[in-house]
This record gives sequence, C-alpha cells and structure tokens, in this order.
Amino acid sequence: MNAPAGFFASTEPLKYAGPESRDPFSFRWYDKDRVVLGKRMEDHLRFAVAYWHSFTWPGGDPFGGETFLRPWMHGADEMALARAKADVAFELFRILDAPFFAFHDRDIAPEGRSLKESNANVRAIADIFARKMETSKVRLLWGTANLFSNRRFMAGAATNPDPDVFAYAAAQVKTVLEVTHELGGQNYVLWGGREGYETLLNTDLKSELDHMARFLNLVVEHKHKIGFKGTILIEPKPQEPTKHQYDFDVGTVYGLLCRAGLEKEVKLNIEANHATLAGHSFEHEIAMAAALGVFGSIDMNKGDAQSGWDTDQFPTNVEDTALAMYEILRAGGYTTGGTNFDAKVRRQSIEPEDLVIAHAAAMDVCARALLIAADMIEDGALQHAVDERYAGWQTPDARAMLAPGSSLDAIAARVEAAGLDPQPRSGRQERFEALAGSYLR
Amino acid sequence: MNAPAGFFASTEPLKYAGPESRDPFSFRWYDKDRVVLGKRMEDHLRFAVAYWHSFTWPGGDPFGGETFLRPWMHGADEMALARAKADVAFELFRILDAPFFAFHDRDIAPEGRSLKESNANVRAIADIFARKMETSKVRLLWGTANLFSNRRFMAGAATNPDPDVFAYAAAQVKTVLEVTHELGGQNYVLWGGREGYETLLNTDLKSELDHMARFLNLVVEHKHKIGFKGTILIEPKPQEPTKHQYDFDVGTVYGLLCRAGLEKEVKLNIEANHATLAGHSFEHEIAMAAALGVFGSIDMNKGDAQSGWDTDQFPTNVEDTALAMYEILRAGGYTTGGTNFDAKVRRQSIEPEDLVIAHAAAMDVCARALLIAADMIEDGALQHAVDERYAGWQTPDARAMLAPGSSLDAIAARVEAAGLDPQPRSGRQERFEALAGSYLR
Amino acid sequence: MNAPAGFFASTEPLKYAGPESRDPFSFRWYDKDRVVLGKRMEDHLRFAVAYWHSFTWPGGDPFGGETFLRPWMHGADEMALARAKADVAFELFRILDAPFFAFHDRDIAPEGRSLKESNANVRAIADIFARKMETSKVRLLWGTANLFSNRRFMAGAATNPDPDVFAYAAAQVKTVLEVTHELGGQNYVLWGGREGYETLLNTDLKSELDHMARFLNLVVEHKHKIGFKGTILIEPKPQEPTKHQYDFDVGTVYGLLCRAGLEKEVKLNIEANHATLAGHSFEHEIAMAAALGVFGSIDMNKGDAQSGWDTDQFPTNVEDTALAMYEILRAGGYTTGGTNFDAKVRRQSIEPEDLVIAHAAAMDVCARALLIAADMIEDGALQHAVDERYAGWQTPDARAMLAPGSSLDAIAARVEAAGLDPQPRSGRQERFEALAGSYLR
Amino acid sequence: MNAPAGFFASTEPLKYAGPESRDPFSFRWYDKDRVVLGKRMEDHLRFAVAYWHSFTWPGGDPFGGETFLRPWMHGADEMALARAKADVAFELFRILDAPFFAFHDRDIAPEGRSLKESNANVRAIADIFARKMETSKVRLLWGTANLFSNRRFMAGAATNPDPDVFAYAAAQVKTVLEVTHELGGQNYVLWGGREGYETLLNTDLKSELDHMARFLNLVVEHKHKIGFKGTILIEPKPQEPTKHQYDFDVGTVYGLLCRAGLEKEVKLNIEANHATLAGHSFEHEIAMAAALGVFGSIDMNKGDAQSGWDTDQFPTNVEDTALAMYEILRAGGYTTGGTNFDAKVRRQSIEPEDLVIAHAAAMDVCARALLIAADMIEDGALQHAVDERYAGWQTPDARAMLAPGSSLDAIAARVEAAGLDPQPRSGRQERFEALAGSYLR
Ligand SMILES: [Co+2]
Ligand SMILES: [Co+2]
Ligand SMILES: [Co+2]
Ligand SMILES: [Co+2]
Ligand SMILES: [Co+2]
Ligand SMILES: [Co+2]
Ligand SMILES: [Co+2]
Ligand SMILES: [Co+2]
Repeated sequence: MNAPAGFFASTEPLKYAGPESRDPFSFRWYDKDRVVLGKRMEDHLRFAVAYWHSFTWPGGDPFGGETFLRPWMHGADEMALARAKADVAFELFRILDAPFFAFHDRDIAPEGRSLKESNANVRAIADIFARKMETSKVRLLWGTANLFSNRRFMAGAATNPDPDVFAYAAAQVKTVLEVTHELGGQNYVLWGGREGYETLLNTDLKSELDHMARFLNLVVEHKHKIGFKGTILIEPKPQEPTKHQYDFDVGTVYGLLCRAGLEKEVKLNIEANHATLAGHSFEHEIAMAAALGVFGSIDMNKGDAQSGWDTDQFPTNVEDTALAMYEILRAGGYTTGGTNFDAKVRRQSIEPEDLVIAHAAAMDVCARALLIAADMIEDGALQHAVDERYAGWQTPDARAMLAPGSSLDAIAARVEAAGLDPQPRSGRQERFEALAGSYLR
Repeated sequence: MNAPAGFFASTEPLKYAGPESRDPFSFRWYDKDRVVLGKRMEDHLRFAVAYWHSFTWPGGDPFGGETFLRPWMHGADEMALARAKADVAFELFRILDAPFFAFHDRDIAPEGRSLKESNANVRAIADIFARKMETSKVRLLWGTANLFSNRRFMAGAATNPDPDVFAYAAAQVKTVLEVTHELGGQNYVLWGGREGYETLLNTDLKSELDHMARFLNLVVEHKHKIGFKGTILIEPKPQEPTKHQYDFDVGTVYGLLCRAGLEKEVKLNIEANHATLAGHSFEHEIAMAAALGVFGSIDMNKGDAQSGWDTDQFPTNVEDTALAMYEILRAGGYTTGGTNFDAKVRRQSIEPEDLVIAHAAAMDVCARALLIAADMIEDGALQHAVDERYAGWQTPDARAMLAPGSSLDAIAARVEAAGLDPQPRSGRQERFEALAGSYLR
Repeated sequence: MNAPAGFFASTEPLKYAGPESRDPFSFRWYDKDRVVLGKRMEDHLRFAVAYWHSFTWPGGDPFGGETFLRPWMHGADEMALARAKADVAFELFRILDAPFFAFHDRDIAPEGRSLKESNANVRAIADIFARKMETSKVRLLWGTANLFSNRRFMAGAATNPDPDVFAYAAAQVKTVLEVTHELGGQNYVLWGGREGYETLLNTDLKSELDHMARFLNLVVEHKHKIGFKGTILIEPKPQEPTKHQYDFDVGTVYGLLCRAGLEKEVKLNIEANHATLAGHSFEHEIAMAAALGVFGSIDMNKGDAQSGWDTDQFPTNVEDTALAMYEILRAGGYTTGGTNFDAKVRRQSIEPEDLVIAHAAAMDVCARALLIAADMIEDGALQHAVDERYAGWQTPDARAMLAPGSSLDAIAARVEAAGLDPQPRSGRQERFEALAGSYLR
Repeated sequence: MNAPAGFFASTEPLKYAGPESRDPFSFRWYDKDRVVLGKRMEDHLRFAVAYWHSFTWPGGDPFGGETFLRPWMHGADEMALARAKADVAFELFRILDAPFFAFHDRDIAPEGRSLKESNANVRAIADIFARKMETSKVRLLWGTANLFSNRRFMAGAATNPDPDVFAYAAAQVKTVLEVTHELGGQNYVLWGGREGYETLLNTDLKSELDHMARFLNLVVEHKHKIGFKGTILIEPKPQEPTKHQYDFDVGTVYGLLCRAGLEKEVKLNIEANHATLAGHSFEHEIAMAAALGVFGSIDMNKGDAQSGWDTDQFPTNVEDTALAMYEILRAGGYTTGGTNFDAKVRRQSIEPEDLVIAHAAAMDVCARALLIAADMIEDGALQHAVDERYAGWQTPDARAMLAPGSSLDAIAARVEAAGLDPQPRSGRQERFEALAGSYLR
C-alpha cells in the first residue's frame, strides 16, 4: 500500500492570518515568531501532536465501532499500513507547522508475534521517523510504551500479579526508552493506565505499590545508563480504565515518588482532563506540581463538564486555558516539556479536515491564552495583590515562627503578651477575578 | 442553669438483646464482651461519640436555621450552658456504654473575649470532664482545636496570609494538645478545615504549603516536649468548606508528610465521607494508609451517594462497613485509634431519642460488620485466593527483579531468551465478590 | 463451525443448596419454588439473561481490546458463529434455569450488506430461538433494535439530522418488534443510546424532540396494528455514549411521553446504573415511575460508586438491592416486566465459569433482597410508621384543601382564624433506617 | 437605628467607561443604552439584584459562622434593622443602576410571632419599597415566599406530611403573591427548597407529588383571581438542602407540570448552578425549556466545577455565559423574565466594596457575552450550518414520515424499495466550536 495521497485536501502549511480571519485553515492567534515575554511563541508553547488520537484511534466508543475508516487502518500488510500512517502523520505535522510530536510504541508500529518482532517493528518505523525528521522541523517531545491495550496487561504492567508481565513491560520500556533517546526525544512518559485495581478484594495493594516503585527505579537507572538527558515523566490519572489507579493525581504521585526515593528524578506530565476527573482544576495540578518541584509537561485537552470519563476533547475555552498558562508561566515555563494535544476529534468528526481544524483552533486557543497570561505576568497587578496579601510574613516575628528554634510555647507566649486578636481581611476574590478577567482579549 | 434533667426519657444503659430484638433501645449485634479474633468487641471497635455533632450542632443547614432547640443552646450564662451540655454528653456516653469520646475545644466551652479567656474556659470544662471521668468508663479518644469556625480563620489557620492567625492557631493548639494529654487522650487530631484556598488567584500556594509543614513540625515537637505518648493524626478532606483543601486524601497527605519529614511521626484519621468526596472508597483510603504505614484511626460515618457535600450520616450499610472493617483488621486493627462517630442525626431528627437510636443502630452496624470481617479473616479463603494470584512473585526470577542490581537490560535479556509471552489469567472478580458476600450475616 | 462443545465445564443446571453452601455453582438464596407473599420466587423475580453483555461483548474498553476470545467471535462464516453463540446462550439459560432472556437484533445475528439481509439474518436466528424455546423453559422478556453501534447511527437514530437514518431505524424497529411479537416477547424496549447530542452548537433540539416523539408514536401504532400485547418500554439514561441524552431519567421521560401523548401507552425500563449516573438512587427511579404510573421493568446491575460511566456490574450489595425490591413490591411487582441482568463480567473475568458465577451470585443477591423486602412488606412496621406520619391528611380540613373549590383565600382565612402555628415533628430518619436495616438476613 | 450612612464608600452610580478602563468601579462592557439587535442592552439583560444573597446572608457556611457583621444584622428593633437594610439595598440598586430586584418575604422583613404579624411586617416593608420605587428606576422582577428557612418547613411546605404546614405555606404565598402584584412584579417564583425528601423510607412519594400539584394549581388560580398578569415561575434544583428535590431539572418539572395540567400556565426560572448540579449545562436547560415552551427567566450565577454543592458564585467566564446568552436570544429573549444575580460574594469578601465590584464585574461578563451572542445571531453562520445539517428534513419523503398517516410499514417499504443505506456525515463539532469561539471579543 502506498501513502494515501490526497488524504488531506491541501497540504499547505497553515499561516497566521490574524484575529479577523474567518478561514478555519489559518491561525488567528498563533503567530509562532511573535515574541512574548522575551521568547518566541513557538518556544513558549512547544506544541506536540499526539500520534495515538489523531492517527491510531478508529473512532469507536463503548457503544459503537469504528467511524473514521482511515485508509491506513485496513489492509493485510500491517507494516505497509504503518508506513502509510507515518506519511499522513508527517503531513499533518507539516500542515500544522508543529514543532513536536509524541507517540506510544503501539501507535506507530504493529504488534508482532513476539516482543522481539514488536520491537523490530518499532525500530523500523523509528528509522522512518528519523529519516523524515531530517527534512522536517518536527522533533520528538516524548515517547512512551503502551502497557495497557494488549490483553496481557489487563491486570496491570508493573503492578501485575504475574511477574512475567512485569518483566515483559520492563523489556518493552527498555526499547521505547532507547528509541526515544535515539530520536532525540526530550522526555520519556510513563502512563500507568492499568497500574491500579478493579477490586481491592483480589489485590495485594502494598506489593503492587512496591513493584511499581521498583519499576520506576529500573527505568531511571536505565535512563542514566544510556545517557538519556531527557526527563522521565509520570502522567497522573485517577481512574479509567481501571476503577482506581495508583497515579491518582499530582499530590499522590509526589508521595509515591518520595516513597520510591525519586522525587528529584521524575517529573509530571499533567493532563487537563485527568485533573478534572481527579476533582481538581487543571491549574491546581500545575500549581501543585510547581510548588512540589515536579512540574514537567502537559497533555492539553479538556473534559466534558458533565461527563465522568476521559473525553479528551480539544480545548475551546480561552479563559480556562489562560488560567493554566498563567500557572505555567509562574512556574517558569517549560524546560523539556511542552503542550501536547492529548485530544481527539469527536467520533462524528470523520472528515480529514476535522483533524486539521481541531488542531488549528486548539493552537489558537492556547496562543490567545498565552497572550493573556503574559499580560497578567507583565502587568503584575495580580502578583502585586497577592504579595500585599501575604506581606505580613516578611516581618521578623513571622519569619521567626518559620525558623528552627521556634516553638508552640514561644509563640503562645507572644500571642498572650501581645494580646493578639487578628482580624479578618477581605480575600477580595471577586476583585481578583475581575482583574484576571480584564486581561481577556 | 442546671443540667437539663430528663433530657433523655431514660438514662438506662442500652443492653445487648440479640439479633431478634425489635427494641431500638437495645443492641442487636454489639455485645461488648464477646470475643472476636481473640479480643473483646469493645476493644476491637473502640467506639467514640463526637461532641460536636451530637451536642453542639444546632440542626442548621445552608438553607435553614436551628431545628433542635436543645436546652443548653439558649441562655445568658455560657459557661453554665457548657456545664449542662457536659452533663448531657456524659449521660449519653453512659446510655451508649461508649468507651471513648472526642471533642474540639470550641464544642465544649464558649469562646472568650481573648484567647486567654477561651483557654481558661476550655480548661474549666476539661476539669469537669476529668472529674466525670473518675466515675465514668469513658476515655478520651482525641481532642482537637477548632481552627475554622471563628471568622478569624476564614482564610485558614496555619495557611492564613496573616501570620498572626498562624500564631493564634499555634497558641490554641498548644492548649488543646496539653489538655488532651492531661485528660489521657489517646490521640490528637488536626483537621485543616480551611487549610486550602477559594481561588488560586489570591493564593501563594507554595508558601502556604511551607507554613503548614512548619506548623505540623511545631506540633510534633511540642508533643515530644510535653511527653504526650498519643498519636498525632491528620484527617484528610478534599474540599468543603474551602473549594480545595491541601489535606485532600491519604495519598496527598502522605506526600506532604514526606515533604515535611514527618511520615514516621504523624498518622491519619480517615473519614468515610471524606474518602468518597475525594473520589475513593472508604476501604481504599484505609488500605492505602496501611500500605503507606500511616493508618491511625477512623471517623465512621457515610455520605449520601448522590450528594456532593459532607453529609456525615450514621453508617447504615453492613456490607459496605464490613469491607472497611476487613481492611482495618488486615492492617492489624487499631493501636491508639478508634471508631469515632463523626456523624450527626438528620436535622429533622429533633427528638433526644433520635440521638440514642442513631448511635445504637450505628454501633450495631459496625459490630455486625466486625463479625463478618472477622469471619473473612478467620476463614482465610479470600486471602488464600489473593496469595494464589500473586504466587509467581515468590519465584527466584521474580524476586531478583525486585532486588538491587537488577536492570532493564538483564530483564529484557531474560524475556527474549525465555521467549516470555505471559498469558492473562482471570481476575475472578465476581468470584471474589461472591465469596466476600457469602460472609454476610 | 460447530457449537463450542464444552465451553462450560459443566452444563448441569445449578441447584438451590441453601445459605450454608460454599459451592459457587449453587444457589444459596434463590429457591425458585419458594413461595413469598403468595407467589413463587421465580414469578416474583422473573430473571432475564442479557444476550449482549454475556455473549456479544468481547471484553474491550476504551483503552484496550478484546480479552475474552470467545470461540464464536472469530471465524469467516458469521451466521455459523451466530448459531454457535445461540447454542452457548441457551446452554447458559439452562445452567442458570433462567426463565427469560433479552436481546438486541445485532447481538444475535450479523449485520448484512443491506437492511433486508440484516433482517433476514435476524429472522433466521429468531427461527432457531423459536425451535430452541420449544424444548426450553426460557421465554423472551424483551427484544430491542440496536440503533447505536453502526456508524450510520453515530448522530442518532430517530433524532438523526438525516431523515434517511430515521427511516432506516424505523424499518429496523419494525422487524424487531415483529420478531419480538412472534417469539412471544413480553415487552419491547427502546434505548435511545444516541438520541441526544454532543454539542448544542450543531443541534436543532426542538426538531429532534419532535422527531423522537413521532418515532415513538409510529412504534406504538405499529404495536397495535400487529396485535402485540406486550409493553413498549423506554430505558432512560442521562449520557454515554452521547454527552447528553434526551431520555435522561424517569422524570424527564415522563414529560416527553406527555408531550407525545403517550404517557398511558409507554412504560419505563429502569436501569440501576443509569439511575445513579443521572444523580438518583435506583429506588428513587422505581418509586418515581410507580408514582407517575409508568413503572415497567428493570435492568438490574450496579455502577461503581466512584466511576462516572456505565460500568454495568453485577449487583453485589444485598441491602441496596433490598431497597429497590421493596419499591418494586410497593408498586405491586412486575406485570410484563422482569429483572434483566444488564450486567457484564469484568473484562479480566475471562473464564467461562466467571459468567456462571456472576449470574448465580447476582440471582442470590436479588433473591435474598426479595426475602428482606417481603419481610418489610409483611411486617408492615415501615408502612405503618409512614401512615402515621401522614395521618393528618385524613382530616376533613386537609382533604378540603386538596379538593376542587379550595382557594388560597379560604385556606389563609382558616390559618388566621385558627392561629395555626404548626410545630415540626421528628422525621425519625435514623429510626426508619434502623428499622429497615433490621430486616437484613 | 438609622440608615447605615456611608456603608458604601461612594454612592455614585457606576458609569460605562469602556473596555480599556481599569477602574473596578466602572462598567467596561455594560453600556445600557447601546443598541444590540434592535434593543437597548438594559432591555435585553434586565438585570436584577437579589435581596437574599446581598443583604440577608451573613457569610456563614456549614463550618463557620457569620463573617460580614453588617450593621443591619445586629440590633434589638428588627423592623428598624429591616428599614436600614432597605436603605442600603436601594443604595446598591442605584450604584449599580440596576433595573430590577428580587426578594423573598423573609429577606425583607423579620418573622413575627404569628403569620399575621409576619405578613404585616412584609407589607410594612413593601410600603417602604413602594415609596422608594417612586423615586427610583428599579422595578420588581419577582417576589417569592421563603418556605424553607423556618424549622416549621423542615419537612417541606406543600409536600409536608403535616397538612397544617401546607395550609401555612399557602397562606404565606397568598400574601407574597399579592404584595408582588401590588409592587408591579413581573413574575412570581416558587422555589421548592424542601419539596423533596431525605429518605424514601419515611416518605409517601405519590401523595407528596399530588399535594404539590394541588398547591401549584391553587397558586395559579389565585393569580387569575387577583388579576396578576405576571408569570408564575418554578425554579428547578436537583438537591440541596434536601437529598432529593422533586423540581429536579427542566425536563422533570415539565413532566410534573403536565401531570398537574399546568404546562401552559407556569414557566421556569433556570439557575446556572442548579443546572450543573443536575448534570446539565446551563445552556442545555435554557434550550430545553425553550423547546418545551416553558422558558421564563434565569438566575445568573456559576457553580464551582469541582464542588458538589450550590456555591452561587458570580459568573466570571465570558465564553460560558455567551453560550447561555445565545440560547436566550434563540429563544426570543425574555418577556417578563430577566437576569437575576442569584449570587453571593464569597464569605471572605467582607468589605462593602466587594458587593459592588462583584455585581459590576458580573454585569460586564453578561454584557460582553450578550455582544458575542448577538454577533453569533447576526452573523448567522452557526444557524446556517445547523440548517444545512438538517436540510434533508425539508424533503417531501421526510415531511411525510412526520405527518399523520405515516407508518412503520410504509417507511420500511420505502427503505427497502429505495435500498436506503444512509452514510454518516461529519458532525463537524470542532468546526462549530471554532466558529463559535471566533466571536469571542
Ligand atoms: Co494524557
Ligand atoms: Co485523557
Ligand atoms: Co471527620
Ligand atoms: Co465529614
Ligand atoms: Co440497560
Ligand atoms: Co448501563
Ligand atoms: Co436560584
Ligand atoms: Co443556587
């Protein structure tokens, strides 16, 4: 099978056309060379296209099958299909002028009859990627191993009751980590889709946590062994597919990293929809990771506010996205991380152009949000108001309480001596919100 | 004001009358001296009555005011009212034959015009407690400081933007910790009801986390200074009253304890309704705490499965409660902890007898659940099935992967050499569930 | 392909063995001939096995593919596979001694190259069913048309923007309604899995509601035309697969039936998991349907209390199930309806015996719940307490207010004249709950 | 007590100052005389200030008491306090240049020792309102009776087990309906805060629904009797304070209205936060009400996306609000309805200026959203795309299916004759979303 020529009606890269443009095949806000806070927009946002959702997902849901009927999804020669898929993928990268992409091993190449063959398939497609990347600007944001789709992983990978599955997963990660390294990947991601349980009744919770900690250490050790300088990232998710996943959210993963002695080695890839499924706002998870020193990268998407599962929709709300971008800027922006669209067109969006429009519109939402967030930073009024609210902590008495040597006794003595009777001050939430809202453009 | 004589129609202690009893003023399952797994039921369950819900809450909700009109809630002499309340409380302890109770400082004594006066009020009532405890079997499970009701705490206690509030809270905790120690309390609880935020926009998240960590260390240092041998407990809750609380759940609190260097010093008080609000089952939070080595005590109650706030209802479902009891038994049972009814009668349950019936029925639910959980343990079939599921981890190859010195390289070599192709085995969830269900009595 | 001989290790019908039995291949509580409230248990419960979950679902989820690898799911001759599936299905019906089964057209027979061919396939398998039913006790609880799996229905069936899809769906329903009639089906179900929308932006809400109303009327008219005496049932569900479905819950469907003039013609099939996804308890939806005069049948299953999607698990909690059974008994029990297990074994439960155990355990849960509910009815204490609570409504003044001719003026005059100042009376919720709990066995 | 002079630092009406204004005491978008779609902004939006949240709520929550300490909340002469409150209220109306306000009877006047006295209090304050309205532009959007705060209503008003409470509520509504009529109110609202249940166990569901239906009919009959030309509105809410309320959502209320024969008499007041608590988007509830012919008015606010209770926050998200405004415009805009801010400043926002800023910012959010929604309407591209999607329904064959006389037989015959095999067309959701997003300004 050849490349599906003409899959996209046009393969012209989208151009920045300004906010007044009505052409869905242009950027209204994403102007990659525009300098924002001293950095090009492209370097701020570091957009990545996800191989899985855009090229591998066939459009099914729990109540219905394939809707997309992509030409590269049907045929006898699986490697030929994989090559055709790669052609389309790089075509989309070019159309979107995307600086990065991301993949699971099983997205890019078919599973073979043995792990050895599967790995060979992955390496064969990776070679094609390498060649394509010579003439493309696109780079690899991260690679990851799919340790959840095959039925062998139905009860977990690192946390499987069967140690052979642990071994198999370890061997699979080794290959993908190395391939990621060879392709110049900036990060390697672990998403523990089935590292959790369906029922506590059949689960040895403590052993599974121990096994997962060991697995993480093995990966980090191998990273250093092969000289991979990228970041190891964990992507938290509270549930789905399992009833309960160990990597529940940022706070929980931080604790598990501490327990494994890895809080300095591993950072987090935070997905918007996973944040909300865990009962947090996206900006909370980013801010929390930053405060804990483990902010790495993001999976940009959105959930449906009324649905209880991972809808992985393209972001559409500029104001919500601006709050996330503001926290990313406050955290100092990305180092190796980026803005990966872990998002899929709806299963009714069956036309190739839907793929293009969805990404372009989402890039615009993020770019507009970045401009807003940059205004918030540059203007400084929000930060100034926060600083004012906490100004008391700069006094000597306050500093002393935080310093070693302070004690409840000493503090209580001071409270009594001074007759402290602190009066509440307005939190001025509506004023803060109005101020934040005033940057919307 | 005198004690409200005759508040309860009868002050006779409830008696065990067996499962066939139809008398709501008797125990059908709670037979305190019955030996279960080698221990008296009373010593297993260590029931505590919560002062707050039963004696201090007036029956209001966000859309309506007081319904209970308790005699000790209305009057000019607040200390006299507090003494009358104490009389009623100890009367209920006696009626229920409760081995423990628990309180916040503001539950038991009125707030004074200064912290000094407030502390004096607390100590005065504590003296009354001490005298009453001389002739009562009831002991103190834990004390805690209310750092959330007064408007001075509206923006938090340890995490308040105003350091004077931090100081005030520290001084307040000092007193309650000492009073708890003096009353022979088995634990001291910190519930950070307002340690969180309403909007990230006005919040310095990292500073607040740092301040909270310092506060915890101050408390632990003071505990050791005064020789308190009880356990310091944190009670996680994801939200409510604040939009987002730092002590979100077991996993998150564990991470914060690690960050503060306190994971060996502090344990957790897990509330059923807080677990479900955080997106977990109650038994998950218990099992997780046990696996992380921080299981302490429980606040027994239940939420409404369709309501998104903390309803703090008395537990009614034996099967759900048995799953929690099973995890507690697997964790080795309580050491200093207990089963505290952090539960309130519904605001329409305005009769004194509703208080008695609610506690008695809940104690029966727990006792019945304990018997079931003990059967699960004694029979061993569940544990046996779990052991069988993980049996592979006892092999040398499996142990080697967990041991230092293993590597992805070595594991991958073994996978390839052995041609490992692990086949999934049934998780048998329905069989496990049927087995667990078979212990219901 | 032949029937998969020996798919089940044993094909012996399960027997009632009593509560002490430890054999998972026996009934502990379901004793079909036991008379409860004057009726055989089997006639009360009217269990049905669902063809879809047990024989057609391959074990996939959104993050992983097939796990079950049933022999009848792989092969070239689709009709031969369908016949093999039918053999296994009737084997399971016999093993479970199930009085009923239920199916979608696409569960039982493969889709053809045209609707005509698809219908022929359905009729061919229905003929096999008819023959098998001659020597089997199993009868058809209901049939239904699958109007959601094929991509042609991706935007709805009766509510599709394309009227040809409406027509196609109508033609499909015609066949299945007739086949259901011919097989002696007791009901015909409509589940509007994609009758809803993904985004309001692309939706003409009012037209879709009008089209759906017309569709329902067409079905009801055809029912009368062909002389089908069974009940037309709608199964409410709030969402999933679509973001929002029109048949949200019992209350909403009742309104839509009124709008279509069908509130006397159509009844509801209430699913436990759909009730909870809509923010209701299962028993609420049953009680509501009964109060509105539209209670029909149930899809018995349970959701996961922490998951936001339709998990369709087998029921395991006797106490929860008893509350549902109590409402069914209060509603007078089933007429044409039944207890259909719209439940699937977990995707890790890959062994044939898991199917048997899951159904048997669920039947036991329901049987035990029925016994409890029957005790609640027979004892009458709950109903008596309710009657007492509402006794005031039997007075002439109260009756007058409800009668035509009363007015706010007259009522207000009486309130003022009598100086009415009604005092609250305890709702005694905990006592009611303790009483209800006392029937647990 | 006199009016709290100087409660607001300034009483100057806020002025429109344009989008570039940084003054929180000005309007950036709300330019009342600006003509939008042929109507003044003020006449489109019809803003109302809610008496309850802004003047009566003291800042408490379930875990803490009063924070606001408003001068009119503490004093011995309750009627003097009520008059002082009215002064402040009308001052805020003037500052905001608000065209409407809304109230509960118990917000504006203290409860007396009898209903007669309470009614007299209400009438006395209403007289003051009437006088103030002579010199104020503000008019009454709606009045309503508080049938939930007093403990007599703890078990419901119209659905109370005690018919005397039904009578009392009826008498109370009579007065408020008449006062609303006399003050020229445009609507009368019924919010059934406790018309629901806490547990089905103590509830006679069908009787309660019957009583509620009778109550509604009494109110409608009285409306006609006194010649009130305004609209009777019901405000749906799924839960809180009760565990389950009968007026769950738009769809459910529509069904109950049909059952009571009132679907032509009563319309709905839709609150954003109640919509989301019921599992719907705000725009869904508006669109649904419009489709069912019962759209009346809105309570504008927002919930917290991660909290499961009614937070009643001021709206802050322009994009979300624009989607609601778009549905209102599609529904033809308000007739007697308006945009009532059923929103409260956070309990930490204790300064008077917080009240002003919150309202002003919210009015700006709505005004900006209106401009966006008007652009969506005027441009017509969205509607055009929808029309195109449904264009097939204009064909004769399609119309015929909807017309009387069509049948499944006829349709099926046509499907077979024509060999219909409808192919899916892209729902183009991302394109619709991008288009909708393009109107953001
Ligand atoms: Co992701
Ligand atoms: Co996701
Ligand atoms: Co608690
Ligand atoms: Co609680
Ligand atoms: Co169902
Ligand atoms: Co379902
Ligand atoms: Co409202
Ligand atoms: Co509200």
